[in-house]
Order: sequence, then C-alpha cells, then structure tokens
Amino acid sequence: MLQNFPGMEEKNGELMIGGVSAVSLAEQFGTPLYVVNETVLRKNMRDFASALSSYEGGGRIFYASKALSVKRILKIAAEENIGADVVSEGELRTALAGGMNPENIMYHGNNKSEKELAFALSQGVGYTAVDRPEDVYRLAALSKEYPHKIKLLFRIVPGIEAHTHDYIRTGSFDSKFGMPIEEALPLMQYAKAQGLCVAGLHCHIGSQIFETEPFRDAAKLMMQFLKEAQALVGEDACILNLGGGFGIRYTEEDSPLPPADFIQNAVRVVTEAAKELKMKKPMLFFEPGRAIAGTAGSTLYTVGGVKKTKVGKTYVFIDGGMTDNPRHALYDAQYEAVIANRVSDEATQKVTIAGRLCESGDVISEGILLPPAKEGDILATFSTGAYCFSMASRYNRVPGAAMVLVGEEAPRLIVRRQTAEELLSLDL
Amino acid sequence: MLQNFPGMEEKNGELMIGGVSAVSLAEQFGTPLYVVNETVLRKNMRDFASALSSYEGGGRIFYASKALSVKRILKIAAEENIGADVVSEGELRTALAGGMNPENIMYHGNNKSEKELAFALSQGVGYTAVDRPEDVYRLAALSKEYPHKIKLLFRIVPGIEAHTHDYIRTGSFDSKFGMPIEEALPLMQYAKAQGLCVAGLHCHIGSQIFETEPFRDAAKLMMQFLKEAQALVGEDACILNLGGGFGIRYTEEDSPLPPADFIQNAVRVVTEAAKELKMKKPMLFFEPGRAIAGTAGSTLYTVGGVKKTKVGKTYVFIDGGMTDNPRHALYDAQYEAVIANRVSDEATQKVTIAGRLCESGDVISEGILLPPAKEGDILATFSTGAYCFSMASRYNRVPGAAMVLVGEEAPRLIVRRQTAEELLSLDL
Repeated sequence: MLQNFPGMEEKNGELMIGGVSAVSLAEQFGTPLYVVNETVLRKNMRDFASALSSYEGGGRIFYASKALSVKRILKIAAEENIGADVVSEGELRTALAGGMNPENIMYHGNNKSEKELAFALSQGVGYTAVDRPEDVYRLAALSKEYPHKIKLLFRIVPGIEAHTHDYIRTGSFDSKFGMPIEEALPLMQYAKAQGLCVAGLHCHIGSQIFETEPFRDAAKLMMQFLKEAQALVGEDACILNLGGGFGIRYTEEDSPLPPADFIQNAVRVVTEAAKELKMKKPMLFFEPGRAIAGTAGSTLYTVGGVKKTKVGKTYVFIDGGMTDNPRHALYDAQYEAVIANRVSDEATQKVTIAGRLCESGDVISEGILLPPAKEGDILATFSTGAYCFSMASRYNRVPGAAMVLVGEEAPRLIVRRQTAEELLSLDL
Repeated sequence: MLQNFPGMEEKNGELMIGGVSAVSLAEQFGTPLYVVNETVLRKNMRDFASALSSYEGGGRIFYASKALSVKRILKIAAEENIGADVVSEGELRTALAGGMNPENIMYHGNNKSEKELAFALSQGVGYTAVDRPEDVYRLAALSKEYPHKIKLLFRIVPGIEAHTHDYIRTGSFDSKFGMPIEEALPLMQYAKAQGLCVAGLHCHIGSQIFETEPFRDAAKLMMQFLKEAQALVGEDACILNLGGGFGIRYTEEDSPLPPADFIQNAVRVVTEAAKELKMKKPMLFFEPGRAIAGTAGSTLYTVGGVKKTKVGKTYVFIDGGMTDNPRHALYDAQYEAVIANRVSDEATQKVTIAGRLCESGDVISEGILLPPAKEGDILATFSTGAYCFSMASRYNRVPGAAMVLVGEEAPRLIVRRQTAEELLSLDL
C-alpha cells in the first residue's frame, strides 16, 4: 500500500515519512500530529505549474489555501512562485504573513463584506472573484478610497455538475456560488462603466473529481462565454480561471489522474476553442487546493487501546478524532491507515478507527484492515493534508494538534500544539 | 412561533431575547453573536433539579458540559448546585475555572489517557465512568500516587437503541462506549479487589430523544443490572446514572416533553423496580446537556444579501455559517429563524440560510420560511445553545464568534470575539 502514498516508505519495519521515522516524530512532537512532507508539497505545486508552463497564453496556479492555511505552507507556495486563493481576512493575513506577493492573491467568497473587501484592497490583492452583484457595488463604492485596481473575474455557474459528494458539489445552477452567464454579462458592462478592472471569468465545478470530461466540457463552455464577454467589454477581459476540484487518492480504491493530465486536457480544449472561436488564447488560472496539500499530509496518533464489542465490531481508539479530522463525520470520507511501528505486519483485522471524542460519529475510518493493534502503537493515516487542520474544531475542548514539516530539512514544528490553558483564553 | 422558544418576545416589531433587543445586541457586540439567556439556562437547570428533588433515594443532576463548555456557564451550574460531566482536561479546567466543586464533577471518555486520569485525580474529581477495562487498570496503577477515592460508575451498553440520528446513537451493542453487563460484573469485582471505589452503574442510550419508552426500558434494565452488581460487590454500589439525551425543540415540528417528565418517568420506574427487586432505592444521576443549554441559546447574524438562483432557489447569506454552527453539515439539522429587526413581518419566502464559508454544504437551515430578507437585516436562529459554540471550527480561518449573556443582568460578554491576528498565533 505504501507505494501509493508519496513519500511513504518502510524501513526496518517502521513507517518513514519523507525519510523520517514516524515513531520518532511522535516521540519528539507528541500526538495527534499532522506531518507535512515538504518534498511532496513542492512536487505537487511544481507538477501543476510545469503542466501549465508550456501553454502559450500564459497563466498561473493559485493554491486554494482553504485546504491548509498555515503561514509556512503559504511561504512555500510563494517560494514556488505560485499564487494563493484566499476566502477570508484570516486566510489573506496568513498568505501575507507567509510572504506571498499580494498581486498573486485571489480573493474569493460568496458573502464578502465591505470591511473584508476594503482590507483586501488596502493590501493590494491582485484579483477577486465577483460572486454576485453586491461585490461590484461594494468595489465600485470602495474604488475612490482605494485606487488600486483589483482585477475582477466573474464567477459563472456553467450548469455542469461533477460526480461527487452532494456537500461539495458546486457549479450547478442552484449553487450558492456564482451566477449564470446571462446575469454576468450586463454586470461586467456595469463594472467596466464604473471604472473597475474587468479581467475575465471564473468557474469551479466541484471537488474531489476524478473524471476529465466535466472539466473539458466546462472549459469549452467557458471559452464561449469569454468570447461573449469580450464582445461586450473588450479583449482586456482575457483571463479564464477554471478553478480546482482535482481528485486525490484517499483510499486504495481511488485512482486519480496526475495533476498534469487535468491541466493539459484543459489547455488542449482551450487552445482548440480559441482557434475555433477566433479568439486570442486567454490567460489560464487554476486553483488546486486538495491536490496540492492533500497527499503531502498525514496524521499520527497514539493508540489508546482496542475494543471488541459483543457483536463483533472492533474499534481501535486513537488520541485524536473528529476534532483534527472531521471528514468522516461530514462526508463519510474514508482513510487508509497503518501501524507505523509495525508497518510490515499483515493487515488481518477489520477495524473502525474511532477517536476520543464523546460522540458516536467520531470515527476516522470505518471497516478498514489493520494488523492487530495495541495500546501505545502509533497509527498513521494518509492524505490528511487538506481539510483536516483547516476544518479542525475544539469540540470537547480538545486542544489543536501540532504540525511538523519533514522531507527537505530536519523536522521542524510549523504549528505548535495548543495548550489546555489556551483553550480558555477567550472565556471571560 | 416565538412563543415556542423560551425568552423570545416581540416588542415594537423587534425580537427581544431575555428582555433585550436583539438588534441592539448585534450593534453593541457585533455578529455572528451567540446569545445565552441566563434566565432560561437557570430554569432548565432548576427544572431538572426540582424534578429529582422529591425522589427519596437522592441524586444529582450533572450538566453535560460538552454541550456548551464556557467558564461562565459552568459558574452558573455551580451556583445552581448542579454538577458537571466533563470529557477532557479542557472541559475539566473550564468547570474548575467556573468554580465547580470537583466532588460534583464526573469524568467521562472512551479513551481517557493515564495523563488525563492523573490530572482528574490530582484535582479531586468526584466520579468517573469506566468505559472499558483499561480505565480500571490505569486507575489502579494511579491509586498509589493519588489516594483520593474517585467513585467509579461502570458504563453499560444496555442494548437499547433510541430513535435518533445514526451519528448520535449510543447504547447499542456495537457502540464505542461502555460494555455489556456480563463484562462489567467481573471488572467491578476486580476493581473492588484493587481497592477502588466501585460506586454503581451508568448508561446513556442516545441523544435528542423524544420518546420516554426507551428511557423507561433502560431504567428498568439497569435496575436489574444494579441488583446483580450489588450481589457481587455489595450495596455500596448504590448509584445509577441514567445519562442524558433528552430531546429539545429545534423546529416547530418538534414537541419535546418537559424535562420533569423524563426524570419523573425514570423515578417512577426505578421506585417500582426497587420495590419489585427488594433493593434500596439507588441514588439517581442524570446528565442533561442539550436540554440545559440548547434552548437557552440563540445566534445573531447580519444578512449580507439575498440570492435568487436561475432555478428558483433563494439563499439568504449570513456572516457566519458552519464554522459557528456545523449541525446542518453534520446531522442535517434544521433551525427556525426570524428577522430580528422585523420580527412581525409575515414569513412568505422559502429560503436556504447559507453561510459565508467556501463550501456548498455551508448551510444552517434548508427551505425554511422567512419574510423577504435584505442586506443589513439581523437574522436570529433559535436553540443554538448546545453543540454550536462547542463544535465550532476556524474553517476558512474565520475567527471564533463572541458570546453574550442576557436575561438577569445587563448584557455581558462571556466569550470575547477572536481576532484575525489570533488565528495565526499557533503558526510558527
């Protein structure tokens, strides 16, 4: 199994993550512990960037930082010369603290407040997605105070639905995000008349998508829309942002395409469409989040014991749970796991990995195979880099877990463990 | 509708919460804002305590603080002379910070570490639930260092399932919590032989339960189990903790029983069973959490706008969402809502209340009736006192919302709003 998860190896019966013993990481930094493999993270970023680099129209990869918004991760993105997609003041501050050039930041959100937009403008953020007319009204009102020209990409619902979990589906016409093209066109004209910088279109058709077809269909449709837009507002509206949503491997059953394939498919469709529609090739933006951070991350837990119930169900109890990874509770997500200190032992036992929280739904993975586990074992779950730390809660007043970076240099703490005292710091 | 939610009134077309204008609270403290009505909170606590007070065997109500673990809330519980059920070091610290007598604290958890148990013992915690054999082994090992006699209640899975949402079901034999009676009995003998204080039994059959029948059946069964236990370890094991799980009103369709009814039903069953089984009446413990905090809480949001989609779905966008209330995302929970500044306007529009987070599943309530909303309106959702603040995340790096206490004295901030800077305080 390990060979399917990048950066994971076996050495002397132990799990190595980016060349570092998982057991030693658990000893040194405690558990639960998020481990980010910098080598994998950078490779994921470079794979996207390089797939786009040969496209003649130019473009940029924006890391969708909601997947994992941590100062050090954004610093690495900045070093790799990719941009950041942020969705709040907090994510923007994180990107800026990581040293990201604000010109390479894209500000998203279905309900951006005037205060947030003003903050984004004051920081010189390069782009924003117009999710609804109010964004334009607010930006027009703010443009006197903030003369900086933020570039507007109008978020379109193309009406294409990708096959994915209901909760993370977007792009269909009843989405809370974006607007149909017939609403966007007059709004683009209005925005231009207000002196705003109308730079192009955006769409995002879903998350954790494995098929290339919906992306191809969306790209083709969006090219037609861009042509219509350019006819109205001119060829300065030359950016097409095709969003993210590229699926990654969580379990053995998943077989995602390499990032390059998604990008190259889109590039091909866009190139053909530009020829057909007699348009200049647009600048292409993509916003991978999960596909950058997901496989770079894993989580280490200490096993607190094993419980066999009267009816034959076996639980492996860990010292974390839905607080550090709520994706099973939210989406019925599944994760592969190994016992890091005995990684070569045969996985013979079907178990449920359950957390320490006082909630029956506090499960990480249901019915997966593990070697017989015991108290004190270090359990590692894979592909937890995206939407685990970022969605973490303090339910049951459990402190936030630490995060360590491995792979390139000596293991380095990049998020420190919250203390029990700090949990009460906002209580008056 | 307001009359169904305690402490809610209309005055001059505005919503009053515990006698205070919701609009003025939003102005003074900002939104999103959790509002806790102290009068309702205390009444809920007193209703439980008084329903139990006439029971001749004696007993105690323990507030299940995972519902809402905040220092000030625990202080109120202590003032009302009810105990606290805690499930982590963080919740224990919160109860102690609130001035709770440790003797009145019950420590729960399916995976309590030795370190946590040692901390509980060092603080003089009165009770703990034995969830599995490891708890006894650890307590036995710790008893030399910590001579304080913590009282052990053995958590039993009675095999009774209450009709409720899958994710919050417990009590069935495949639960991650507790053990069947046939496992508990020898463990109780062992614990006694180790010099530990074997004090009785515990069970908890589920959450948000509306029927009294499962509680009655569980109480009857648990009395038989207690009799068996006493035959083995003596009549000092005289406590029966019947847990919580009492349903509350979230929507108009819910029709919960008053707390007193649940308690009185249980008291009746236990009294009859004691007579039948020729036992001394046990001391009775209950652990309501949701039924204490739930209806005492509401949440105020500012409406950022309304969006009508091409296919007729209407969204009301608020400045919070699944970060302050993840219960729709987790359990498909529904909430009633009103527009606080125009509370008497007729609710004519079917809408989805959606949050500001970059996630399609970021919804608070789907398809509820509201008066036509507009930007700047203050939206109030009811019955958000339990499992909202306590399950809150910082997804999208959105700061934690503030909480204000109303009803008895002038409005008072009890949890301050997190700052955007503080969100990064653990990033290195």
